[in-house]
Amino acid sequence: MAKTKIGIGVIGMGWMGGVHSRAYRAVADRFPDCPLEAELVICADEVAARAREAQQRFGFARSATDWQAVIADPQVQVVLITAPNYLHLETALAAAAAGKHLLCEKPVGRSPAETAQIARAAQEAGVLTCTGFNYRWAPAVQRARQLIGEGKLGPLTHYRGRLFVGYASDPRSVLSWRLQREQAGMGALGDLMSHAIDMAMMLAGPVAKVVGQQETFIKERPVATPGQGDHYAVKSGGPMQEVSNEDYVGALVRFKGGAYGVLEACRIIQGPQSEIGFEVHGTQGSIRWNFERMNEFELYLAEEGAIDPGYRRVLTSPRHPFHGAFSPGAGIGLGYEDLKVIEAYNFLQSIASGIQGEPGFATVLAVAEVQDAIERSWKTERWEAVCSL
Amino acid sequence: MAKTKIGIGVIGMGWMGGVHSRAYRAVADRFPDCPLEAELVICADEVAARAREAQQRFGFARSATDWQAVIADPQVQVVLITAPNYLHLETALAAAAAGKHLLCEKPVGRSPAETAQIARAAQEAGVLTCTGFNYRWAPAVQRARQLIGEGKLGPLTHYRGRLFVGYASDPRSVLSWRLQREQAGMGALGDLMSHAIDMAMMLAGPVAKVVGQQETFIKERPVATPGQGDHYAVKSGGPMQEVSNEDYVGALVRFKGGAYGVLEACRIIQGPQSEIGFEVHGTQGSIRWNFERMNEFELYLAEEGAIDPGYRRVLTSPRHPFHGAFSPGAGIGLGYEDLKVIEAYNFLQSIASGIQGEPGFATVLAVAEVQDAIERSWKTERWEAVCSL
Amino acid sequence: MAKTKIGIGVIGMGWMGGVHSRAYRAVADRFPDCPLEAELVICADEVAARAREAQQRFGFARSATDWQAVIADPQVQVVLITAPNYLHLETALAAAAAGKHLLCEKPVGRSPAETAQIARAAQEAGVLTCTGFNYRWAPAVQRARQLIGEGKLGPLTHYRGRLFVGYASDPRSVLSWRLQREQAGMGALGDLMSHAIDMAMMLAGPVAKVVGQQETFIKERPVATPGQGDHYAVKSGGPMQEVSNEDYVGALVRFKGGAYGVLEACRIIQGPQSEIGFEVHGTQGSIRWNFERMNEFELYLAEEGAIDPGYRRVLTSPRHPFHGAFSPGAGIGLGYEDLKVIEAYNFLQSIASGIQGEPGFATVLAVAEVQDAIERSWKTERWEAVCSL
Amino acid sequence: MAKTKIGIGVIGMGWMGGVHSRAYRAVADRFPDCPLEAELVICADEVAARAREAQQRFGFARSATDWQAVIADPQVQVVLITAPNYLHLETALAAAAAGKHLLCEKPVGRSPAETAQIARAAQEAGVLTCTGFNYRWAPAVQRARQLIGEGKLGPLTHYRGRLFVGYASDPRSVLSWRLQREQAGMGALGDLMSHAIDMAMMLAGPVAKVVGQQETFIKERPVATPGQGDHYAVKSGGPMQEVSNEDYVGALVRFKGGAYGVLEACRIIQGPQSEIGFEVHGTQGSIRWNFERMNEFELYLAEEGAIDPGYRRVLTSPRHPFHGAFSPGAGIGLGYEDLKVIEAYNFLQSIASGIQGEPGFATVLAVAEVQDAIERSWKTERWEAVCSL
Repeated sequence: MAKTKIGIGVIGMGWMGGVHSRAYRAVADRFPDCPLEAELVICADEVAARAREAQQRFGFARSATDWQAVIADPQVQVVLITAPNYLHLETALAAAAAGKHLLCEKPVGRSPAETAQIARAAQEAGVLTCTGFNYRWAPAVQRARQLIGEGKLGPLTHYRGRLFVGYASDPRSVLSWRLQREQAGMGALGDLMSHAIDMAMMLAGPVAKVVGQQETFIKERPVATPGQGDHYAVKSGGPMQEVSNEDYVGALVRFKGGAYGVLEACRIIQGPQSEIGFEVHGTQGSIRWNFERMNEFELYLAEEGAIDPGYRRVLTSPRHPFHGAFSPGAGIGLGYEDLKVIEAYNFLQSIASGIQGEPGFATVLAVAEVQDAIERSWKTERWEAVCSL
Repeated sequence: MAKTKIGIGVIGMGWMGGVHSRAYRAVADRFPDCPLEAELVICADEVAARAREAQQRFGFARSATDWQAVIADPQVQVVLITAPNYLHLETALAAAAAGKHLLCEKPVGRSPAETAQIARAAQEAGVLTCTGFNYRWAPAVQRARQLIGEGKLGPLTHYRGRLFVGYASDPRSVLSWRLQREQAGMGALGDLMSHAIDMAMMLAGPVAKVVGQQETFIKERPVATPGQGDHYAVKSGGPMQEVSNEDYVGALVRFKGGAYGVLEACRIIQGPQSEIGFEVHGTQGSIRWNFERMNEFELYLAEEGAIDPGYRRVLTSPRHPFHGAFSPGAGIGLGYEDLKVIEAYNFLQSIASGIQGEPGFATVLAVAEVQDAIERSWKTERWEAVCSL
Repeated sequence: MAKTKIGIGVIGMGWMGGVHSRAYRAVADRFPDCPLEAELVICADEVAARAREAQQRFGFARSATDWQAVIADPQVQVVLITAPNYLHLETALAAAAAGKHLLCEKPVGRSPAETAQIARAAQEAGVLTCTGFNYRWAPAVQRARQLIGEGKLGPLTHYRGRLFVGYASDPRSVLSWRLQREQAGMGALGDLMSHAIDMAMMLAGPVAKVVGQQETFIKERPVATPGQGDHYAVKSGGPMQEVSNEDYVGALVRFKGGAYGVLEACRIIQGPQSEIGFEVHGTQGSIRWNFERMNEFELYLAEEGAIDPGYRRVLTSPRHPFHGAFSPGAGIGLGYEDLKVIEAYNFLQSIASGIQGEPGFATVLAVAEVQDAIERSWKTERWEAVCSL
Repeated sequence: MAKTKIGIGVIGMGWMGGVHSRAYRAVADRFPDCPLEAELVICADEVAARAREAQQRFGFARSATDWQAVIADPQVQVVLITAPNYLHLETALAAAAAGKHLLCEKPVGRSPAETAQIARAAQEAGVLTCTGFNYRWAPAVQRARQLIGEGKLGPLTHYRGRLFVGYASDPRSVLSWRLQREQAGMGALGDLMSHAIDMAMMLAGPVAKVVGQQETFIKERPVATPGQGDHYAVKSGGPMQEVSNEDYVGALVRFKGGAYGVLEACRIIQGPQSEIGFEVHGTQGSIRWNFERMNEFELYLAEEGAIDPGYRRVLTSPRHPFHGAFSPGAGIGLGYEDLKVIEAYNFLQSIASGIQGEPGFATVLAVAEVQDAIERSWKTERWEAVCSL
């Protein structure tokens, strides 16, 4: 099939910038049905060496140190914002104003209000949007969505979601931008819980109200050496500074559809490495999933088993959504970056059709509204309704 | 070692009455160090055939249909109350008044207030007490307690506890006494969450405040045929009646020691069969346990592993508390009833020493105070402090 | 139901003697349908203190230091031989000659030939027999047997069985009787592989031919201090002596029914604690089980799952054989000794009916014939047919 | 780093041809230290449409329908043979004769003798070689190799390896070339067991002798519709033909280093989907791995754990070999094709250095010698020494 080329520009060439570059380049091969073929036009990073190296490594036609060059590039039709959170607002508004389709990594705004501002701007500009809620694209998660949609679990009763990682578990790890409210906005609630909220709403529908709690367990950390913002860096001695956003957040949620839930996120946990997971329960069954074992899920159907009921461990296979684009069989697993390819494919499909897909900025805004209610509940110490922003 | 005999009377010879009878009889063999040897004196059940059958089956000297006979029996020094919840108040008060040491199955009172009343009466009578929080006696759980106490996990950060069973998951299962507020008091919060609260407090300390939510998913059920109160019975057709206590409860908790938690319980879940479990996290490690795999736990210690960190699956062994009384090696597992033997052993040790042990009515009262705060939060829709009752 | 009493005598009051004593005592309670009620008449152990302590602990009417007293006791109708292997021959022949029903712990003989001699004697005496292949009694294993018998797995294709324990993994652990050919006979092939062969034949039928290999990895060990035969004892320094039977055995087997198999056993393994398990495969499905998680099994049925095939983790429940005698629900597990109660129940049922049950000495003999062929193959270095002994 | 370009030609553009094309293209990005950059020069497939589609999809400069064009192409320095087994001999000999470096998918020859012929030809031609034993490249497997090499497990005692897949489990699946001796050569012994033997020897060293058994459970299958060779195709009705190579093979092995082993492979299994795994045991510990959960392994070290020994579930991370080229953290997993990128990287490194790496044709030949001994043992029904071919 002859494909139409579409120009891609990327702002921010840290690790995530590279992941997206690879992903967009891979779509045409992995998804032959996609009518668009991504062309890597320009990448930008304020660190010149990083920009140039990325250009060469991923095959961009050009590179720049100012993000404006990406947006101004006439060949660029789609802008991917993979820069740190504190750059999202300015870059996203500019890209939307320039009429570019727009992917911005989560959490789009540093605060719910900022996310709302960005979402509104994109909508007014009439551009198509996407965000990096990549875990939802795991074939197992999409299969869970199908099974729930088909009613196999019956009406949902309760839902338990979480995102547990330990990237800040070492007290000697430096105060990167992610740990500072001014630069990152929310802490675990933004960086991590956003994924958990997105997945919860995708599977169990919109949230009516919430009540939460939060803590910053490690109160201060070593100041980072300038130019070394890596949030894995570790440092002993030297000046310390206050961590200004939360390490942990837990919340009860009430879904509009009648289900009850618990959501948690933590960035200083010891044990789980990448436990992004859920258990979703209905009157007729349940499903469990954990990103640490991305290529499988556990399924319990009350109608099955008779004498021998139990959770079935299902390895994803080409029978499940998206799996077949990457692997010919069950038990032959996808890797993390394949989720980003699926994300890119879905965004390109949305652009090709002109129909806003999911998860766009409307989804991010819905997540931000839940975050906003959780934040309010921290102060009021009571249930808070999820309100439009 | 020559042992002193101590007379046991049991009120209520349903399944749980039998479990206790066996357990007390087994202590002398399993725990040769216990100076007391239980003598099964008298058992009572309002159903005469059940009382007589139990007498013969377990070897009681006599049986009765009125529980007063148990308390009045001069040979009875310890009364075990294993009757349905609605009989706890009257029997416990009478036993305490008669100066008998007293085990009452959880949840002692139908409501927190009733539990407080019973606990006060026992304290005033100066009798020693115990309750059936049996899951805490699993060697894996006691080992977790040791490890936390030794500081191996560092200061605790968060705790996740739950009790998920499906005994009422079938909508056709009858409206047993457990599902009616008047007879059972609380639903999942009393019957199930009590275990989860006890375990949470044993491992992570007292609770400062809570906020919860609850639901009765199956609103009405078939009326039970008189005399068939088994809560597993299923019935189609016939009159229906309202379920008057909750199927599900979830809560956020704040521990006094600084940790944060989530507790949940459900009696209509599909999938988990007996998922009584926790994950407890500290700054240096974590432990996971689930009663469905009672004889093992998972341990993560940040100090270990270097290049190869991970959760270690530990099979309990004679190196762990109580295990050696039942099994000569790791991987040679205990059964559920062995936990009751450990419970009985601990109560007899408490009686032998004259020192109130754990979990006595003070523990039950502490649990009830948390339940009371959760119930209040259902109405106020806000965090509620745990207060003395 | 009025039960008939039947007198039990036990020879050898080490750990295993106690396990049997408890088990026979528990049958009447656990299995009300059993018409016989075991009466503990007499126990014998050459160590007088051990005999007396056991008498008191388990409630035998009398005790002795000579095993002949057990067999001579007119009240004894059933003799349980739980003494070390080197006493099996003499005691079993005497018991059979005295017309007593007879349980002898596995491996009945030190060598296949000795087993054959004992089996013949019992058959000629017309007594009923039993042996301690206890792992086969796990509800999960019995359920596997049912499922295979019902054809749910289709014709069997291959079978993988094993028994991995580490009781001799420490090179400093002493040279107990189990590690000496003269006293124990075979090593891992007798002590451990016998269970694996029994289970394989119970599930997949008789074996036609075998080829095996073996090794004694730890060639010599500290000589045990007299009177301290415990095979867990550890000792440093002092004289060493040769280990005269094998630590490890592996074998390929060809079943008469057409399936293919692998069997292994090891007593010096590091990692598995009590990995007594199998995977059995047929053209339509498979089952996996491991004693370390005794109360569950994994079931794969090709006919199920459609889009979502997978192994189902089934927790045993009262719907499975024998489970309900010990536990009221799924996920409420049995302990190791409960398997011995089931064994005792089955032997008493056999005695009550007068019909030889399984596993009797005919089963042990069939196992011994496989062992004999494996031993021959060690020498001939080729496949050996399983022959009648 | 400025890289030197190296021309790649691929013969056979079925699924595996695509996998290699992607893999070689990805090396420069994933492994910046590699001095060579693969240039996709030419691909060939006898089906013209497939050749052209592959050219476009993967970006080859040209394509052809005759494999000779690949070898004749002066820009091609490395030939990858990913055609069906029956084409290996002719193509590999021609490539070697032309002085091209050469990767040939396993099993290189249809028979051990054919493999020996190819290996000799390559050696005489002085070209560097590689083969597709890709599972060995999983970071977990390479970490196992390191741990064994460092002596962490102590001297090895026994090893259990297997490759269980069900691609032919449906009796209606057609008689593809893989199931015919003339075209594929060996069945499960070649296609599957080759991986298991390679992994066993990489981890536990060379094999001294073997004894095996084999079976073709499904004796005949539907004849494939010409041009539809996919071994997943299913067909009902129509003519049937004999399956001429084995579905299952099991073997005992004796390693030269003193360890004992069991190896198995099956292509008609029901349950395991891609169970490519091993358990390797030494006197001080053990490691378990299964490709179905590729990104983790289980590690038992006797020196650890003290009171709490157990298998540690380790999620691979950038601390482990190759992982960091694909993922920034533990629990963020690689996919199957990433193993092929590692394979390509290693082959390019070998070419860059001029030093023959592993696994080259010498490794394949060593595997073939084990296969040859297994085949001999099928006929002689006895242990067979592994001999040079």
